[in-house]
Amino acid sequence: MVVKVYGPAIASASRRVLACLIEKEVEFEIIPIDFMKGEHKQPDFLKLQPFGVVPVIQDGDFMLYESRAIIRYYAEKYKTQGTDLLGKTVEERGVVEQWLEVEGQNYQPPIYNLVLHLIFHPKMGLPTDEKLMIESEEKLGKVLDIYEERLSKSKYLAGDFFSLADLSHLPFTHYLVNDIGKEYMIRDRKHVSAWWDDITSRPSWKQVLQL
Amino acid sequence: MVVKVYGPAIASASRRVLACLIEKEVEFEIIPIDFMKGEHKQPDFLKLQPFGVVPVIQDGDFMLYESRAIIRYYAEKYKTQGTDLLGKTVEERGVVEQWLEVEGQNYQPPIYNLVLHLIFHPKMGLPTDEKLMIESEEKLGKVLDIYEERLSKSKYLAGDFFSLADLSHLPFTHYLVNDIGKEYMIRDRKHVSAWWDDITSRPSWKQVLQL
Repeated sequence: MVVKVYGPAIASASRRVLACLIEKEVEFEIIPIDFMKGEHKQPDFLKLQPFGVVPVIQDGDFMLYESRAIIRYYAEKYKTQGTDLLGKTVEERGVVEQWLEVEGQNYQPPIYNLVLHLIFHPKMGLPTDEKLMIESEEKLGKVLDIYEERLSKSKYLAGDFFSLADLSHLPFTHYLVNDIGKEYMIRDRKHVSAWWDDITSRPSWKQVLQL
Repeated sequence: MVVKVYGPAIASASRRVLACLIEKEVEFEIIPIDFMKGEHKQPDFLKLQPFGVVPVIQDGDFMLYESRAIIRYYAEKYKTQGTDLLGKTVEERGVVEQWLEVEGQNYQPPIYNLVLHLIFHPKMGLPTDEKLMIESEEKLGKVLDIYEERLSKSKYLAGDFFSLADLSHLPFTHYLVNDIGKEYMIRDRKHVSAWWDDITSRPSWKQVLQL
Protein backbone atom coordinates (compact mmCIF):
# COMPACT_ATOMS: atom_id res chain seq x y z
CA MET A 1 0.00 0.00 0.00
CA VAL A 2 1.51 3.32 -1.10
CA VAL A 3 0.96 6.00 1.56
CA LYS A 4 -0.49 9.26 0.27
CA VAL A 5 1.00 12.35 1.90
CA TYR A 6 -1.12 15.49 1.39
CA GLY A 7 0.95 18.65 1.61
CA PRO A 8 3.77 20.48 -0.13
CA ALA A 9 6.98 18.46 0.26
CA ILE A 10 8.84 21.59 1.38
CA ALA A 11 6.55 22.32 4.37
CA SER A 12 8.43 21.63 7.60
CA ALA A 13 5.79 19.30 9.06
CA SER A 14 5.62 17.36 5.77
CA ARG A 15 9.40 16.98 5.87
CA ARG A 16 9.16 15.47 9.36
CA VAL A 17 6.78 12.81 8.02
CA LEU A 18 8.73 12.18 4.81
CA ALA A 19 12.01 11.68 6.69
CA CYS A 20 10.25 9.09 8.86
CA LEU A 21 8.68 7.24 5.91
CA ILE A 22 12.08 7.02 4.21
CA GLU A 23 13.78 5.75 7.40
CA LYS A 24 11.02 3.14 7.74
CA GLU A 25 11.28 2.16 4.04
CA VAL A 26 7.60 2.89 3.44
CA GLU A 27 6.57 3.77 -0.12
CA PHE A 28 4.76 7.08 -0.46
CA GLU A 29 3.26 9.45 -2.99
CA ILE A 30 3.02 13.20 -2.40
CA ILE A 31 -0.34 14.85 -3.16
CA PRO A 32 0.56 18.54 -3.53
CA ILE A 33 -1.54 21.11 -1.69
CA ASP A 34 -1.09 24.61 -3.10
CA PHE A 35 -0.86 27.10 -0.22
CA MET A 36 -0.67 30.05 -2.62
CA LYS A 37 -4.09 29.10 -3.99
CA GLY A 38 -5.36 28.54 -0.43
CA GLU A 39 -6.14 24.86 -1.10
CA HIS A 40 -5.46 24.05 2.58
CA LYS A 41 -8.47 26.17 3.56
CA GLN A 42 -10.89 24.71 0.99
CA PRO A 43 -13.81 22.46 2.13
CA ASP A 44 -12.34 19.37 0.43
CA PHE A 45 -9.11 19.67 2.38
CA LEU A 46 -10.85 20.66 5.63
CA LYS A 47 -12.72 17.34 5.48
CA LEU A 48 -9.32 15.65 5.76
CA GLN A 49 -7.77 18.13 8.21
CA PRO A 50 -10.24 20.41 9.99
CA PHE A 51 -7.50 22.77 11.24
CA GLY A 52 -6.42 23.50 7.65
CA VAL A 53 -2.76 22.58 8.06
CA VAL A 54 -0.52 19.94 6.48
CA PRO A 55 0.33 17.11 6.32
CA VAL A 56 -2.36 14.46 6.31
CA ILE A 57 -1.65 10.86 5.41
CA GLN A 58 -3.95 8.33 3.80
CA ASP A 59 -2.98 4.69 4.14
CA GLY A 60 -5.74 2.60 2.60
CA ASP A 61 -8.85 3.65 4.53
CA PHE A 62 -6.85 5.08 7.42
CA MET A 63 -6.35 8.85 7.63
CA LEU A 64 -4.16 10.64 10.16
CA TYR A 65 -2.90 14.17 10.73
CA GLU A 66 -0.46 15.93 13.10
CA SER A 67 3.07 15.19 11.93
CA ARG A 68 4.34 13.96 15.31
CA ALA A 69 1.40 11.56 15.59
CA ILE A 70 2.06 10.28 12.07
CA ILE A 71 5.75 9.58 12.74
CA ARG A 72 4.87 7.72 15.95
CA TYR A 73 2.32 5.67 14.02
CA TYR A 74 4.79 4.54 11.35
CA ALA A 75 7.61 3.98 13.84
CA GLU A 76 5.31 1.62 15.74
CA LYS A 77 3.50 0.01 12.80
CA TYR A 78 6.78 -0.96 11.15
CA LYS A 79 8.78 -1.46 14.34
CA THR A 80 11.13 -4.05 12.80
CA GLN A 81 11.34 -2.55 9.29
CA GLY A 82 13.95 0.07 8.40
CA THR A 83 15.52 2.09 11.22
CA ASP A 84 14.12 1.43 14.70
CA LEU A 85 13.14 4.94 15.85
CA LEU A 86 11.54 4.17 19.22
CA GLY A 87 14.22 2.38 21.25
CA LYS A 88 14.31 -1.23 22.42
CA THR A 89 12.51 -0.92 25.78
CA VAL A 90 9.51 0.93 27.14
CA GLU A 91 11.99 3.11 29.10
CA GLU A 92 13.89 4.00 25.94
CA ARG A 93 10.64 4.88 24.25
CA GLY A 94 9.74 6.99 27.30
CA VAL A 95 12.90 9.05 26.82
CA VAL A 96 12.20 9.35 23.07
CA GLU A 97 8.75 10.71 24.00
CA GLN A 98 10.29 13.13 26.50
CA TRP A 99 12.52 14.73 23.86
CA LEU A 100 9.75 14.68 21.26
CA GLU A 101 7.67 16.73 23.71
CA VAL A 102 10.59 19.07 24.42
CA GLU A 103 10.92 19.61 20.66
CA GLY A 104 7.22 20.40 20.23
CA GLN A 105 6.81 22.51 23.38
CA ASN A 106 10.19 24.23 23.89
CA TYR A 107 12.31 24.04 20.77
CA GLN A 108 10.01 24.65 17.84
CA PRO A 109 8.00 27.64 19.21
CA PRO A 110 10.90 30.14 19.39
CA ILE A 111 12.23 29.05 15.96
CA TYR A 112 8.70 29.35 14.57
CA ASN A 113 8.54 32.97 15.80
CA LEU A 114 11.92 33.76 14.25
CA VAL A 115 11.00 32.18 10.90
CA LEU A 116 7.60 33.90 10.85
CA HIS A 117 9.05 37.36 11.48
CA LEU A 118 12.27 37.03 9.47
CA ILE A 119 10.93 35.25 6.39
CA PHE A 120 7.16 35.39 6.10
CA HIS A 121 6.32 38.81 7.56
CA PRO A 122 8.70 40.66 5.18
CA LYS A 123 7.24 38.69 2.22
CA MET A 124 3.71 39.67 3.26
CA GLY A 125 4.65 43.29 3.98
CA LEU A 126 3.94 42.84 7.70
CA PRO A 127 6.11 44.42 10.42
CA THR A 128 8.77 42.47 12.31
CA ASP A 129 8.28 42.38 16.08
CA GLU A 130 11.84 43.17 17.25
CA LYS A 131 11.09 42.52 20.93
CA LEU A 132 9.67 39.09 20.11
CA MET A 133 12.75 38.34 17.96
CA ILE A 134 15.10 39.09 20.86
CA GLU A 135 13.00 37.11 23.35
CA SER A 136 12.72 34.14 20.98
CA GLU A 137 16.46 34.02 20.37
CA GLU A 138 17.16 34.21 24.11
CA LYS A 139 14.66 31.45 24.80
CA LEU A 140 16.11 29.25 22.08
CA GLY A 141 19.63 29.87 23.38
CA LYS A 142 18.65 28.58 26.82
CA VAL A 143 17.02 25.51 25.29
CA LEU A 144 20.16 24.85 23.21
CA ASP A 145 22.32 25.13 26.34
CA ILE A 146 20.30 22.27 27.82
CA TYR A 147 20.74 20.31 24.58
CA GLU A 148 24.50 20.94 24.70
CA GLU A 149 24.66 19.48 28.20
CA ARG A 150 22.50 16.51 27.19
CA LEU A 151 24.47 15.80 24.00
CA SER A 152 27.75 15.94 25.93
CA LYS A 153 26.53 12.76 27.66
CA SER A 154 24.80 10.83 24.89
CA LYS A 155 25.28 10.85 21.14
CA TYR A 156 21.59 11.44 20.41
CA LEU A 157 18.83 13.07 22.43
CA ALA A 158 17.22 9.89 23.71
CA GLY A 159 20.45 7.91 24.15
CA ASP A 160 22.98 6.26 21.89
CA PHE A 161 20.49 5.61 19.10
CA PHE A 162 18.99 7.88 16.44
CA SER A 163 15.26 8.19 17.15
CA LEU A 164 12.08 10.10 16.37
CA ALA A 165 13.29 12.68 18.89
CA ASP A 166 16.27 13.63 16.71
CA LEU A 167 14.36 13.25 13.45
CA SER A 168 11.64 15.62 14.64
CA HIS A 169 14.21 18.43 15.04
CA LEU A 170 15.38 18.30 11.41
CA PRO A 171 12.88 20.59 9.61
CA PHE A 172 12.93 23.58 11.94
CA THR A 173 16.67 23.40 12.62
CA HIS A 174 17.11 23.40 8.85
CA TYR A 175 15.28 26.74 8.75
CA LEU A 176 17.40 28.09 11.59
CA VAL A 177 20.69 27.11 9.95
CA ASN A 178 19.92 27.71 6.28
CA ASP A 179 17.21 30.35 5.98
CA ILE A 180 17.41 32.90 8.80
CA GLY A 181 21.14 33.30 9.34
CA LYS A 182 21.27 31.76 12.82
CA GLU A 183 23.68 28.88 12.12
CA TYR A 184 25.96 30.25 14.85
CA MET A 185 23.42 29.17 17.46
CA ILE A 186 24.21 25.56 16.49
CA ARG A 187 27.93 26.03 15.71
CA ASP A 188 28.71 27.84 18.98
CA ARG A 189 27.80 24.65 20.83
CA LYS A 190 30.26 21.84 20.19
CA HIS A 191 28.03 18.85 20.91
CA VAL A 192 24.93 20.33 19.31
CA SER A 193 27.03 21.10 16.24
CA ALA A 194 28.35 17.51 15.98
CA TRP A 195 24.82 16.16 16.49
CA TRP A 196 23.48 18.41 13.72
CA ASP A 197 26.22 17.25 11.31
CA ASP A 198 25.43 13.65 12.20
CA ILE A 199 21.66 13.75 11.78
CA THR A 200 21.73 15.81 8.57
CA SER A 201 24.23 13.42 6.98
CA ARG A 202 21.61 10.65 6.95
CA PRO A 203 20.52 9.63 3.43
CA SER A 204 16.86 10.01 4.46
CA TRP A 205 17.23 13.73 5.18
CA LYS A 206 19.26 14.35 2.02
CA GLN A 207 16.49 12.69 0.05
CA VAL A 208 13.81 14.81 1.77
CA LEU A 209 15.62 18.00 0.75
CA GLN A 210 15.56 16.87 -2.89
CA LEU A 211 11.78 16.35 -2.95
CA MET B 1 7.67 0.14 43.29
CA VAL B 2 6.01 3.37 44.45
CA VAL B 3 6.43 6.07 41.82
CA LYS B 4 7.70 9.41 43.11
CA VAL B 5 6.03 12.42 41.48
CA TYR B 6 7.98 15.66 42.01
CA GLY B 7 5.75 18.70 41.80
CA PRO B 8 2.83 20.38 43.54
CA ALA B 9 -0.26 18.17 43.15
CA ILE B 10 -2.30 21.19 42.02
CA ALA B 11 -0.05 22.07 39.06
CA SER B 12 -1.89 21.28 35.82
CA ALA B 13 0.88 19.11 34.35
CA SER B 14 1.14 17.17 37.63
CA ARG B 15 -2.61 16.57 37.54
CA ARG B 16 -2.29 15.10 34.04
CA VAL B 17 0.25 12.57 35.36
CA LEU B 18 -1.66 11.81 38.58
CA ALA B 19 -4.91 11.14 36.69
CA CYS B 20 -3.01 8.67 34.51
CA LEU B 21 -1.35 6.90 37.45
CA ILE B 22 -4.73 6.47 39.16
CA GLU B 23 -6.35 5.14 35.96
CA LYS B 24 -3.46 2.69 35.62
CA GLU B 25 -3.66 1.67 39.30
CA VAL B 26 -0.04 2.62 39.91
CA GLU B 27 0.95 3.53 43.47
CA PHE B 28 2.57 6.94 43.82
CA GLU B 29 3.93 9.38 46.35
CA ILE B 30 3.98 13.15 45.78
CA ILE B 31 7.23 14.96 46.56
CA PRO B 32 6.15 18.60 46.96
CA ILE B 33 8.11 21.29 45.13
CA ASP B 34 7.47 24.76 46.55
CA PHE B 35 7.10 27.23 43.68
CA MET B 36 6.76 30.17 46.09
CA LYS B 37 10.22 29.37 47.45
CA GLY B 38 11.51 28.91 43.89
CA GLU B 39 12.48 25.28 44.54
CA HIS B 40 11.86 24.45 40.86
CA LYS B 41 14.75 26.76 39.89
CA GLN B 42 17.24 25.41 42.45
CA PRO B 43 20.27 23.34 41.30
CA ASP B 44 18.97 20.16 42.98
CA PHE B 45 15.74 20.29 41.04
CA LEU B 46 17.41 21.39 37.80
CA LYS B 47 19.45 18.18 37.91
CA LEU B 48 16.15 16.30 37.64
CA GLN B 49 14.47 18.69 35.20
CA PRO B 50 16.81 21.12 33.42
CA PHE B 51 13.94 23.32 32.19
CA GLY B 52 12.84 23.98 35.78
CA VAL B 53 9.24 22.86 35.38
CA VAL B 54 7.14 20.10 36.95
CA PRO B 55 6.44 17.23 37.09
CA VAL B 56 9.27 14.73 37.07
CA ILE B 57 8.78 11.09 37.97
CA GLN B 58 11.20 8.69 39.58
CA ASP B 59 10.44 5.01 39.21
CA GLY B 60 13.30 3.06 40.76
CA ASP B 61 16.34 4.28 38.83
CA PHE B 62 14.27 5.62 35.96
CA MET B 63 13.56 9.36 35.75
CA LEU B 64 11.29 11.03 33.22
CA TYR B 65 9.85 14.50 32.66
CA GLU B 66 7.30 16.11 30.31
CA SER B 67 3.81 15.17 31.46
CA ARG B 68 2.60 13.89 28.08
CA ALA B 69 5.69 11.66 27.80
CA ILE B 70 5.09 10.32 31.32
CA ILE B 71 1.45 9.43 30.64
CA ARG B 72 2.42 7.63 27.42
CA TYR B 73 5.10 5.72 29.34
CA TYR B 74 2.69 4.45 32.00
CA ALA B 75 -0.10 3.74 29.52
CA GLU B 76 2.34 1.52 27.61
CA LYS B 77 4.23 -0.01 30.54
CA TYR B 78 1.00 -1.18 32.19
CA LYS B 79 -0.98 -1.78 29.00
CA THR B 80 -3.14 -4.49 30.53
CA GLN B 81 -3.45 -3.02 34.05
CA GLY B 82 -6.21 -0.55 34.93
CA THR B 83 -7.89 1.39 32.13
CA ASP B 84 -6.45 0.83 28.64
CA LEU B 85 -5.67 4.38 27.51
CA LEU B 86 -4.03 3.72 24.13
CA GLY B 87 -6.61 1.78 22.11
CA LYS B 88 -6.48 -1.81 20.90
CA THR B 89 -4.73 -1.40 17.55
CA VAL B 90 -1.83 0.62 16.20
CA GLU B 91 -4.41 2.66 14.25
CA GLU B 92 -6.37 3.43 17.42
CA ARG B 93 -3.16 4.50 19.11
CA GLY B 94 -2.41 6.66 16.07
CA VAL B 95 -5.67 8.54 16.56
CA VAL B 96 -4.98 8.86 20.30
CA GLU B 97 -1.61 10.42 19.38
CA GLN B 98 -3.29 12.76 16.88
CA TRP B 99 -5.61 14.23 19.53
CA LEU B 100 -2.83 14.33 22.13
CA GLU B 101 -0.87 16.49 19.69
CA VAL B 102 -3.92 18.66 18.99
CA GLU B 103 -4.27 19.17 22.74
CA GLY B 104 -0.63 20.17 23.18
CA GLN B 105 -0.34 22.31 20.03
CA ASN B 106 -3.81 23.84 19.51
CA TYR B 107 -5.91 23.51 22.64
CA GLN B 108 -3.63 24.25 25.58
CA PRO B 109 -1.81 27.35 24.22
CA PRO B 110 -4.85 29.69 24.05
CA ILE B 111 -6.10 28.51 27.48
CA TYR B 112 -2.59 28.99 28.87
CA ASN B 113 -2.62 32.61 27.64
CA LEU B 114 -6.05 33.22 29.20
CA VAL B 115 -5.03 31.69 32.54
CA LEU B 116 -1.73 33.58 32.60
CA HIS B 117 -3.37 36.95 31.99
CA LEU B 118 -6.57 36.45 33.99
CA ILE B 119 -5.13 34.73 37.06
CA PHE B 120 -1.37 35.07 37.34
CA HIS B 121 -0.71 38.54 35.91
CA PRO B 122 -3.18 40.25 38.29
CA LYS B 123 -1.60 38.35 41.23
CA MET B 124 1.87 39.51 40.19
CA GLY B 125 0.74 43.08 39.48
CA LEU B 126 1.47 42.67 35.75
CA PRO B 127 -0.78 44.15 33.06
CA THR B 128 -3.34 42.08 31.15
CA ASP B 129 -2.86 42.03 27.38
CA GLU B 130 -6.47 42.63 26.23
CA LYS B 131 -5.70 42.03 22.54
CA LEU B 132 -4.08 38.67 23.35
CA MET B 133 -7.12 37.75 25.50
CA ILE B 134 -9.51 38.38 22.62
CA GLU B 135 -7.32 36.54 20.11
CA SER B 136 -6.87 33.57 22.47
CA GLU B 137 -10.61 33.24 23.08
CA GLU B 138 -11.32 33.40 19.34
CA LYS B 139 -8.66 30.79 18.63
CA LEU B 140 -9.98 28.50 21.35
CA GLY B 141 -13.54 28.94 20.06
CA LYS B 142 -12.49 27.72 16.62
CA VAL B 143 -10.69 24.73 18.13
CA LEU B 144 -13.78 23.90 20.22
CA ASP B 145 -15.96 24.07 17.10
CA ILE B 146 -13.79 21.34 15.59
CA TYR B 147 -14.11 19.33 18.82
CA GLU B 148 -17.91 19.74 18.70
CA GLU B 149 -17.99 18.29 15.20
CA ARG B 150 -15.66 15.45 16.20
CA LEU B 151 -17.59 14.62 19.38
CA SER B 152 -20.88 14.57 17.47
CA LYS B 153 -19.48 11.48 15.71
CA SER B 154 -17.64 9.65 18.49
CA LYS B 155 -18.12 9.63 22.24
CA TYR B 156 -14.46 10.42 22.97
CA LEU B 157 -11.80 12.19 20.96
CA ALA B 158 -10.00 9.12 19.66
CA GLY B 159 -13.12 6.97 19.21
CA ASP B 160 -15.58 5.17 21.46
CA PHE B 161 -13.05 4.67 24.25
CA PHE B 162 -11.67 6.99 26.93
CA SER B 163 -7.97 7.51 26.22
CA LEU B 164 -4.90 9.59 27.01
CA ALA B 165 -6.26 12.11 24.50
CA ASP B 166 -9.28 12.88 26.69
CA LEU B 167 -7.34 12.60 29.95
CA SER B 168 -4.77 15.12 28.76
CA HIS B 169 -7.50 17.77 28.36
CA LEU B 170 -8.66 17.58 31.98
CA PRO B 171 -6.29 19.99 33.80
CA PHE B 172 -6.49 22.99 31.48
CA THR B 173 -10.23 22.60 30.79
CA HIS B 174 -10.67 22.56 34.58
CA TYR B 175 -9.02 26.01 34.68
CA LEU B 176 -11.22 27.24 31.84
CA VAL B 177 -14.44 26.07 33.48
CA ASN B 178 -13.71 26.71 37.14
CA ASP B 179 -11.15 29.48 37.46
CA ILE B 180 -11.49 32.02 34.65
CA GLY B 181 -15.24 32.22 34.11
CA LYS B 182 -15.28 30.69 30.63
CA GLU B 183 -17.53 27.68 31.30
CA TYR B 184 -19.90 28.94 28.59
CA MET B 185 -17.29 28.00 25.98
CA ILE B 186 -17.87 24.35 26.93
CA ARG B 187 -21.61 24.61 27.71
CA ASP B 188 -22.49 26.39 24.46
CA ARG B 189 -21.41 23.26 22.58
CA LYS B 190 -23.71 20.31 23.21
CA HIS B 191 -21.32 17.45 22.49
CA VAL B 192 -18.31 19.09 24.10
CA SER B 193 -20.44 19.75 27.17
CA ALA B 194 -21.57 16.09 27.41
CA TRP B 195 -17.96 14.93 26.91
CA TRP B 196 -16.76 17.25 29.68
CA ASP B 197 -19.42 15.93 32.08
CA ASP B 198 -18.43 12.39 31.18
CA ILE B 199 -14.66 12.68 31.62
CA THR B 200 -14.87 14.74 34.82
CA SER B 201 -17.21 12.19 36.40
CA ARG B 202 -14.45 9.58 36.43
CA PRO B 203 -13.31 8.62 39.94
CA SER B 204 -9.67 9.21 38.92
CA TRP B 205 -10.25 12.90 38.22
CA LYS B 206 -12.32 13.39 41.37
CA GLN B 207 -9.44 11.89 43.34
CA VAL B 208 -6.89 14.16 41.62
CA LEU B 209 -8.88 17.23 42.66
CA GLN B 210 -8.74 16.09 46.29
CA LEU B 211 -4.94 15.79 46.35
